[in-house]
Formats: sequence, C-alpha cells, structure tokens
Amino acid sequence: MTDKKLAIIATKGTLDWAYPPFILSSTAAALGYEVQVFFTFYGLQLLKKKLDLKVSALGNPGMPMPMKMDKWFPVLGTALPGMESMMTFMMKRKMKAKGIASIEELRSLCLEADVKLIGCQMTVDLFDLSRDDFIDGIEYGGAGMFFEFAGDSDVCLFV
Amino acid sequence: MTDKKLAIIATKGTLDWAYPPFILSSTAAALGYEVQVFFTFYGLQLLKKKLDLKVSALGNPGMPMPMKMDKWFPVLGTALPGMESMMTFMMKRKMKAKGIASIEELRSLCLEADVKLIGCQMTVDLFDLSRDDFIDGIEYGGAGMFFEFAGDSDVCLFV
Amino acid sequence: MTDKKLAIIATKGTLDWAYPPFILSSTAAALGYEVQVFFTFYGLQLLKKKLDLKVSALGNPGMPMPMKMDKWFPVLGTALPGMESMMTFMMKRKMKAKGIASIEELRSLCLEADVKLIGCQMTVDLFDLSRDDFIDGIEYGGAGMFFEFAGDSDVCLFV
Repeated sequence: MTDKKLAIIATKGTLDWAYPPFILSSTAAALGYEVQVFFTFYGLQLLKKKLDLKVSALGNPGMPMPMKMDKWFPVLGTALPGMESMMTFMMKRKMKAKGIASIEELRSLCLEADVKLIGCQMTVDLFDLSRDDFIDGIEYGGAGMFFEFAGDSDVCLFV
Repeated sequence: MTDKKLAIIATKGTLDWAYPPFILSSTAAALGYEVQVFFTFYGLQLLKKKLDLKVSALGNPGMPMPMKMDKWFPVLGTALPGMESMMTFMMKRKMKAKGIASIEELRSLCLEADVKLIGCQMTVDLFDLSRDDFIDGIEYGGAGMFFEFAGDSDVCLFV
Repeated sequence: MTDKKLAIIATKGTLDWAYPPFILSSTAAALGYEVQVFFTFYGLQLLKKKLDLKVSALGNPGMPMPMKMDKWFPVLGTALPGMESMMTFMMKRKMKAKGIASIEELRSLCLEADVKLIGCQMTVDLFDLSRDDFIDGIEYGGAGMFFEFAGDSDVCLFV
C-alpha cells in the first residue's frame, strides 16, 4: 500500500468523458491512494442522481472509429438528427458487452473505496441546481477547499 | 499563506473553456500560490487584446443543459445556423446575472495578483500573429521555459 | 540535465490534439526528463502504424481562426460535408509550411529520445484491436502500471 494522494478536477459532462475520472479514481484507490475528485463546470452533472449522459461524436473524429461507424456513414454523418442517441446507445452496449461497469456502478465503487467526491458549490448555484439533484455521500465546496488537498497531492489531473 | 506553486498549460480557445484557467489561477493566487500560465495552441487566443470567444455547444451534450436549451430544441438543434451565437449570448448573460466576472475581468485580476501569463512564441509564429495582438504585461516563451517552472510546481494542470 | 520525471495520459484521438503529448514529451526529454506517456481511450489511436487523424473544427470555435476560415464561411459552415477533410488538409499544410514536424516524425523523435510509450491494454481490448495495429517499440499496460511512474513524477498531465 501507499500513502500517496490523487486529486482530480472533473470538468466534462458527456458519457465518454465520464469514464476517465471514475476509472482513474477507483484504480488509484485500489492501489491505496487517498483520492479526492472535484466536480465542477459541466463535470458537476456526473454527480446527479439521474444521469442522462450522452456521447457526442461531433467534434471528435476519434470517436466513430471504435464502433466502425465511419464505415457506415460519411465523415459528417454524425451530424444527422438522431445520430447522437444512436452513438450513445451503441457505446453503452459496447461497454456492457466488454464487461466494463456503467458510470453509476463506477461511481458507487468510488464511494465504497472512500474516494471523496466534491460538488462545486459555485457551479450548483450557477446552474440553478439543488442539492436534492445529487447523490448522497458527497461533499460540497469551492476551488479553495480543493487546493488544500491538491496542493499536497502526488498526482493532480484536470480531466 | 503558502509558498506553493501552480503551473497551468491553457490550450483551449472557447468562451466556456476560458474560465477554468483564469478562475483556478486567481483562486490559487489569492491563497498565496505563485502561479504561471502558459498559453499555447488554441489557448493563445485568451491573451488577445480583442477577445472574440464563442461557446460551442456542438460536441458537448453537457452544454445545453444549464441553459435549459435542450428543452427548447432537439438534441442536434445546436447545429442550426445562428445557434452558436445565441448560446454565446446566453452564456454571457447567465454569467453576468450570477455575478461572475467576465473573462476580461478575470484576466486583469490575474495580472493584478501577479500571476505570470506567458504566450507561446511558437504558436504566435504558427498562427502568423504579432505581439501587438496581445495584451500588455505578459511574457513570451516556449515549452522549455515553462518546464523550468512546472518541474518545481506543486500542482500542474493541462487545461 | 535533470533527474525529473514527466508523466502524460494521452486521451484524444484527433490530429490537432495529437501534437501536445508528443511536443511536450520530446521537449521534456531534451531537457533530460524521464518521460512516460500512457495512451488510453481515444488517444490509443496515436500509436497506430497507419495514422488517419483528422482535425475537427466542430465544437471548437477556436479552430477556424488560425486558418482564417471564419472569414470565408459562416460560423457553422464547418458543419458542411467535406469541411472536415479540408480543415485537416489545411492544418497539415500549415504545419509543414511552418517547419513543424508531422505526428509520425514527432512520435519517432520521442522513441529515439527514450520516451516510454505505453498502450492501454484495456482500450486495445475494448476497441477489438490487435497489437499488430500498433508501431513497434512501445509497451502495453494498465492504469495501475502507469500510476507506479506517475505517483513519483514531478509533472503529470491529462491531455
């Protein structure tokens, strides 16, 4: 085991970019790291009770490839109406087929492993959200609070 | 106060992604951190005198939510002509209504707090820009110069 | 020279976002850093033998500017069919004209400078890829293996 610390700032609110913070956190926790994740900006969505995350193939030419979608549609076929929902459906099915946990499962795993999940209070206020919208077991704070931990961390990532 | 150091590599050139480097820098500076931000790639735009930053909802399903735009338009309605300008307008108004400083104000705040803002000279050359395009009070350098500071930093973020 | 360490997690699979990990790695290696880059998620594509990376202007209003494309097309002209290929072509030509190495060249440079390039085995499996798809001289491992190095690094970046 180790006494190292991992700090993550999670800023993205899409299905695909939801994986890195939770996978890195749970992996580090399993290695004995003390982990804190600060969810701010679009990333705050990852703490909502009811997750409604979507993959966006738009703006990411690296996305279609895994599903071989690029062989079925022209480069910008991903801009067609309905395509976003279809990509989201396909990604979820792919992850499940490969035995990779869902975001909800990874998030629970992190809480069970004592990863501290912190919602950015400023973002909660900015988006007119309420603490009722978020899962239990998390904390709330600001960037200042986060720096207290991050400043002493061994690894700090802006995801 | 602290003698800690924060190093940031700012690489994005959109209105929404302009906030994190300036908010994190000014927060850290207020906590007593020595801060340097290296603006490179698309991020170099954040140092221009005349900022013309836009939000892009495209490729970011996490974006429409805050403004409730997703209730007014179908998922890919954001690809309609004129939508980008509308999103940009709405985000600016939202930030103002919530009492959050503009990018110009946050940038000035950083300079006043002695945050060192460094423009990437290679990017200036790549994009055929001139130093006249940028605000006063900044420095210019390359990745090598940045590593001198980053290598001794307590927190280093690629934003 | 230095005995410092740089750890990078490369997660993006587009032409534009392929530059930062390779430029930062080769620069740090030239400064004497020991460097390891962990290619995971979309970033795994950067290790393929046959690179087919594209720029995506979609979702990045900061992109059109450098090429002055925004003066030729309306804001969302970048969503037109064929535009992505054109942007990719223009970016490659621009980089070449400015004497900036191609991704293939930068990647070779990194290997020659003893930068350790690690492909994420979980991502290889997820995307049904084979080790034959990737260049020689790289290693394979998981996030756990990467933390061994990252936990002792002086600079760690999520790109």
